Amino acid sequence: MTNNFLWQTRVYYEDTDAGGIVYYANYLKYFERARTEWLRSKGIEQQQMAKIEQLMFVVKNIHVDYYAPARLDDQLSVSVEVESIKSVSLYLLQKIWHNTTLLTACRVKIGCVHTLSLKPHALPPEVKTSISA
Amino acid sequence: MTNNFLWQTRVYYEDTDAGGIVYYANYLKYFERARTEWLRSKGIEQQQMAKIEQLMFVVKNIHVDYYAPARLDDQLSVSVEVESIKSVSLYLLQKIWHNTTLLTACRVKIGCVHTLSLKPHALPPEVKTSISA
Amino acid sequence: MTNNFLWQTRVYYEDTDAGGIVYYANYLKYFERARTEWLRSKGIEQQQMAKIEQLMFVVKNIHVDYYAPARLDDQLSVSVEVESIKSVSLYLLQKIWHNTTLLTACRVKIGCVHTLSLKPHALPPEVKTSISA
Amino acid sequence: MTNNFLWQTRVYYEDTDAGGIVYYANYLKYFERARTEWLRSKGIEQQQMAKIEQLMFVVKNIHVDYYAPARLDDQLSVSVEVESIKSVSLYLLQKIWHNTTLLTACRVKIGCVHTLSLKPHALPPEVKTSISA
Repeated sequence: MTNNFLWQTRVYYEDTDAGGIVYYANYLKYFERARTEWLRSKGIEQQQMAKIEQLMFVVKNIHVDYYAPARLDDQLSVSVEVESIKSVSLYLLQKIWHNTTLLTACRVKIGCVHTLSLKPHALPPEVKTSISA
Repeated sequence: MTNNFLWQTRVYYEDTDAGGIVYYANYLKYFERARTEWLRSKGIEQQQMAKIEQLMFVVKNIHVDYYAPARLDDQLSVSVEVESIKSVSLYLLQKIWHNTTLLTACRVKIGCVHTLSLKPHALPPEVKTSISA
Repeated sequence: MTNNFLWQTRVYYEDTDAGGIVYYANYLKYFERARTEWLRSKGIEQQQMAKIEQLMFVVKNIHVDYYAPARLDDQLSVSVEVESIKSVSLYLLQKIWHNTTLLTACRVKIGCVHTLSLKPHALPPEVKTSISA
Repeated sequence: MTNNFLWQTRVYYEDTDAGGIVYYANYLKYFERARTEWLRSKGIEQQQMAKIEQLMFVVKNIHVDYYAPARLDDQLSVSVEVESIKSVSLYLLQKIWHNTTLLTACRVKIGCVHTLSLKPHALPPEVKTSISA
């Protein structure tokens, strides 16, 4: 598959901690921002999906490897690569680079669920089609 | 009024920034945690209030003075003092201390609103009674 | 003065809370991101300023008015306007809009301090010149 | 090993997102708070360790499984269990419960590094002794 999506974000004071580097949980924010922009680039607005179809995406599991830290003012590139698409979930690979240095990588399983019951629900066909393209 | 409420919280890595001190927005989290615990001490659970009465509290304005920084591992005391209670809003004074050092103080106006329309709504009588006690 | 700086940011899941709107402390992150981008546009990199001159900016006080909430997926415009520049501090006015709706405004006093002692220090002349331009 | 540490924390508005549940990155904050309290219970203050020995802990990798969501006002129990201790790193298992419901679990590899170079450094003997106890 070559549907590799790339998106830029910046490190601000809010992201760093007293160690002088980005706090480990905040890379998950960068990953999620990139997933949202990737969905948006496919025509999928999560706010609309929640309102109209009462569906949302939730993370079922994530594995994160931290190779090198991001620092204040760093401009980061965050990627989204589809590994596989199942009936109620999708598997993504994501990476964060600063220039040519790979800082962090993750493999994440995303599930589609009802907004109220939080029960698994089949990915809507149009979403499946969009993210496979 | 002497209904001065005091509550303890701790500074973790997540709260600090690359300057080595607590990030300025995060003191607002401490203020909000203390307000929530103050309400809970009065028998008011916001989750229940949202579900049963479709009402929630929102901040209308806040003024924060930063006197001295909080640092990693600091044990903080956060106070809540009622300044005045109006029909749809309340005014609170809050302070944050580390031992005997005053770190931060705020004056905050809280409004009661509908959860969906976000329109102002009179404070429920039982809430008004509880927080005046 | 007409040195009104405008910068765009986006609302992600991380910024919202169970009320369905942006958590009140997170607007302070948007204000700070815009100040950082405003400084960067003036040639001032805070990471460099800390390393080379051992100086950083800290917020001394802030007043925030919340007029209307920001929601998931909203594209926001954040402004920075210099109100006045003193020897060791500066006063800024900042606003956040969604399209033509003013959501939030603040008046913030920023102090220049030593990175270690956190004692006030005169704004470096080149910084003063840059932000007055 | 039976050195299973248990610590309580509470869900506040800051932790939730527009989905009405705790934002997925914020469970990593709970895990980190519990690790810090676990270290403190062993007599290890990270602020002191950084100042005196120029050493700090960083996360090298983490795997998180999300089973059920935490919600506003939930009182959570967070556990820390030592899986193994190596020369420069340690492996921990952590879980988060609400009452008897397991919400989240993680396996995390923590490395000991120099505060400035961020290069791996052997765990100080007294730390090794304390956390093995």
